[in-house]
Amino acid sequence: MFESALIEHKFDKEAYEREEPALRTGLLEAQLELVEKQSFAAVIVITGMDGAGKGDVIHRLLEWLDPRHVQVDAYGDPDDTESSRPRMWRYWRDLPPKGRISIVFGSWYTDPLKSRLRGDNGRSRFERELAAINRFEEMLTSEGILLLKFLLVVSPEEQKRRLGAFERRTGVKSRALEEWADVKSRKRIRPIVEDLVRRTSTDHAPWIVLPSDDPEYRDLTFGRTILEALRQRLEQPTVLATAPFPATIPNIDRRTVLDTLDLSRKLPSNAYKKALEEAQARLLALSQGKRFQDRALVAAFEGHDAAGKGGAIRRVAFALDPRRYRVHPIAAPTDEEKARPYLWRFWRHVPRRGHMALFDRSWYGRVLVERVEGFASEAEWLRAYGEINDFEEELTRGGIVVAKFWLAITKEEQLRRFEAREEIAYKHYKITPEDWRNREKWDRYQLAIGDMIDRTSTPEAPWTLVEAEDKRWARVKVLETICERLEQAL
Amino acid sequence: MFESALIEHKFDKEAYEREEPALRTGLLEAQLELVEKQSFAAVIVITGMDGAGKGDVIHRLLEWLDPRHVQVDAYGDPDDTESSRPRMWRYWRDLPPKGRISIVFGSWYTDPLKSRLRGDNGRSRFERELAAINRFEEMLTSEGILLLKFLLVVSPEEQKRRLGAFERRTGVKSRALEEWADVKSRKRIRPIVEDLVRRTSTDHAPWIVLPSDDPEYRDLTFGRTILEALRQRLEQPTVLATAPFPATIPNIDRRTVLDTLDLSRKLPSNAYKKALEEAQARLLALSQGKRFQDRALVAAFEGHDAAGKGGAIRRVAFALDPRRYRVHPIAAPTDEEKARPYLWRFWRHVPRRGHMALFDRSWYGRVLVERVEGFASEAEWLRAYGEINDFEEELTRGGIVVAKFWLAITKEEQLRRFEAREEIAYKHYKITPEDWRNREKWDRYQLAIGDMIDRTSTPEAPWTLVEAEDKRWARVKVLETICERLEQAL
Repeated sequence: MFESALIEHKFDKEAYEREEPALRTGLLEAQLELVEKQSFAAVIVITGMDGAGKGDVIHRLLEWLDPRHVQVDAYGDPDDTESSRPRMWRYWRDLPPKGRISIVFGSWYTDPLKSRLRGDNGRSRFERELAAINRFEEMLTSEGILLLKFLLVVSPEEQKRRLGAFERRTGVKSRALEEWADVKSRKRIRPIVEDLVRRTSTDHAPWIVLPSDDPEYRDLTFGRTILEALRQRLEQPTVLATAPFPATIPNIDRRTVLDTLDLSRKLPSNAYKKALEEAQARLLALSQGKRFQDRALVAAFEGHDAAGKGGAIRRVAFALDPRRYRVHPIAAPTDEEKARPYLWRFWRHVPRRGHMALFDRSWYGRVLVERVEGFASEAEWLRAYGEINDFEEELTRGGIVVAKFWLAITKEEQLRRFEAREEIAYKHYKITPEDWRNREKWDRYQLAIGDMIDRTSTPEAPWTLVEAEDKRWARVKVLETICERLEQAL
Repeated sequence: MFESALIEHKFDKEAYEREEPALRTGLLEAQLELVEKQSFAAVIVITGMDGAGKGDVIHRLLEWLDPRHVQVDAYGDPDDTESSRPRMWRYWRDLPPKGRISIVFGSWYTDPLKSRLRGDNGRSRFERELAAINRFEEMLTSEGILLLKFLLVVSPEEQKRRLGAFERRTGVKSRALEEWADVKSRKRIRPIVEDLVRRTSTDHAPWIVLPSDDPEYRDLTFGRTILEALRQRLEQPTVLATAPFPATIPNIDRRTVLDTLDLSRKLPSNAYKKALEEAQARLLALSQGKRFQDRALVAAFEGHDAAGKGGAIRRVAFALDPRRYRVHPIAAPTDEEKARPYLWRFWRHVPRRGHMALFDRSWYGRVLVERVEGFASEAEWLRAYGEINDFEEELTRGGIVVAKFWLAITKEEQLRRFEAREEIAYKHYKITPEDWRNREKWDRYQLAIGDMIDRTSTPEAPWTLVEAEDKRWARVKVLETICERLEQAL
């Protein structure tokens, strides 16, 4: 990958002085247009060999741009906040909103590369992790982010010279901050890095290999590449591919797995009280236990309006130490959330170890309401199944137990509950004209729910279908399921 | 994945009799429109559990369609022709041209699944192979193929009943032709199959899970799904995404690895004769040797017009047993080739074990002439780097040695050779007005060549840059390199 970059490239210093002002003006103009239009976010990954000048190009770029709309995200060893959550959490946390540019230093490539170099990671596992990175980056770019990945390379001679000069100047031996290629292990490292670069040079996010022996050449190339990319995207927004295949499989009888539930299941009042108390005590013990402190729980509650999601969540929450859980009601996304890829708003609520997050509606909105209402394009919700599976797999790998509940009621029961809400004063606010309109789309929702369950019920994060016609039955089933999932995991 | 498919789905027999004629007419009309327009090819993969009726749905489809424009490709254990080539070769061989429908029975999924079930394949390797399948299918669909993948599922009770009836009728015990799920091992197999289906249900080629307990339900769903997919593609051709990022990295000094070659290298006549004869003898011995009989060679020759590709190939061929090699001059694609994904024309020439294929120009045309002349869109040639790396990796895994030569000459030397050709009568045909026009694009070619070498020189299939200003030097270097590569591999 480095063939052309490692030959001599020079740019005359005086010519550089002449060219630089135009580049600077161009970058600033492009950035201001981006800030004004807020049409996309740009993520610039900077990585490369020791002594190639990663810090220098970042300084240069910050000099050129308006610093109020740029952020630098540097990642070293994870701190406490970070290490108590899944690996990818910190990268998600820092994703810039539309209109903003982020410079990423020490990226999601570091982990797989380090493990591979240490030999913890066989070739198969390495390739699998790179495939996951490709899916992640494809998701970012599909969501409209401009992703530029720079790899700075420097010849062995120049590298040695620079690191020596650094040591003489500071008395500090250069430490390989990133394992991309330090001087001594260069020979062993290079083929692995080249393999990584090749496998993650995709059409949506190719690596840009930057020859860095000559600082003027390096900086001018760096700046011009960014300028050209910004300009191209500002002038010509990406055209998303239409899905090549009809998403809706003709489901002739419109029967889904929901139709197999026995919604007549009930729990009498006495039995309910006893079962509820038992399950709550069990959950409290589990969540306070030593073993849970290394794990976490994410529970998603989905169901039609008035299916009893809130009531079930309250019964779960009641059993827990309030410092250890948080309930996240998911309504329309905020401006901040709209400015980022759709999974960002859920990543930000991923709990740290020993904690629980209860979602009243969840990321499944993408394949339910957004699909049915047409808020998401067919291509968007079709690829969401895979993205959601990746998301939950990442949570599971980070030690988090993922529980997902579909609270099922009949259309008739929903009507009864709506009418009851309209009569009871303090429940009146819970019912809106939109709730009535949604009833008309009941059948289309059933198909979407069926597809969702089929495509996202994984062994690690299975769906639990809850017969919710009787609220008592539903609440106990939810609590007991969470207890069982935790017991299995701990 | 099978939740909704495994519940009861029924379609009344009489209703089926009423609905079927319309479906049949619709399918036939859609097919004839496809044959006429030749706008795309359709590949229908049929797989699923034993006794689910895979054969039945194929028969039904053949009944419905005009059989002259349909082919059934069934793959069992590879025969001699197939097993002497890389795994994917037979699937490429049979890819239908535009306007045609192929039904694939026993697909590229069988191998990874079998190895996984046998336990030969760890989870990491399994996932890596599925990632390779996803890239393969994405390539097919990006190239315009409509890919439909059906998985037929049947409940345990119905499966048992059908296989029992089959045995009573024929006296033959049903043999698990495909390992997707037979009766006995169902429990063990199902989670693995579900994992496979989930990981390869992409937005460009999602799996379609077909409930098959009720034959009428199954057949009607099957037919309607195909009909809808055909119609949608006929009415609305896929819009390809524009590349989200400018492909051309500003290469300020336009220097590439080509500029580092010492083109003054020469070989005097005497030394040439001796070196040539030695290398030819060495190559003959290698190619006749026992060890080569399990391997094969693919050599690609690229270079500017008049760089001496033909001459070098002749010197290589001269050393070989004519029954063991074939030279493939690559000019404009034929109609047959244009009707299929661009790599098909090279896959068809992949040699069997013990044989050699010499390509005079190659698959690199995609990122050279097609890029420079604009015959391929930016998105197309950008993704081609990864596709080509995948292609060569597949060859290498199949035991084939891949050698790639760039024959480098200066623009001035090209001019001298052009002028000489115009003077020598029997070489006159070798020079056309287009050759002169291409000279004007010399600089753009140099950049494309540099990118090509950077992005496709892998450890398994490295580029060899040949200083070709002196033809004798070039020929000897080519021969010696092939010998070295073979010696390393054998």
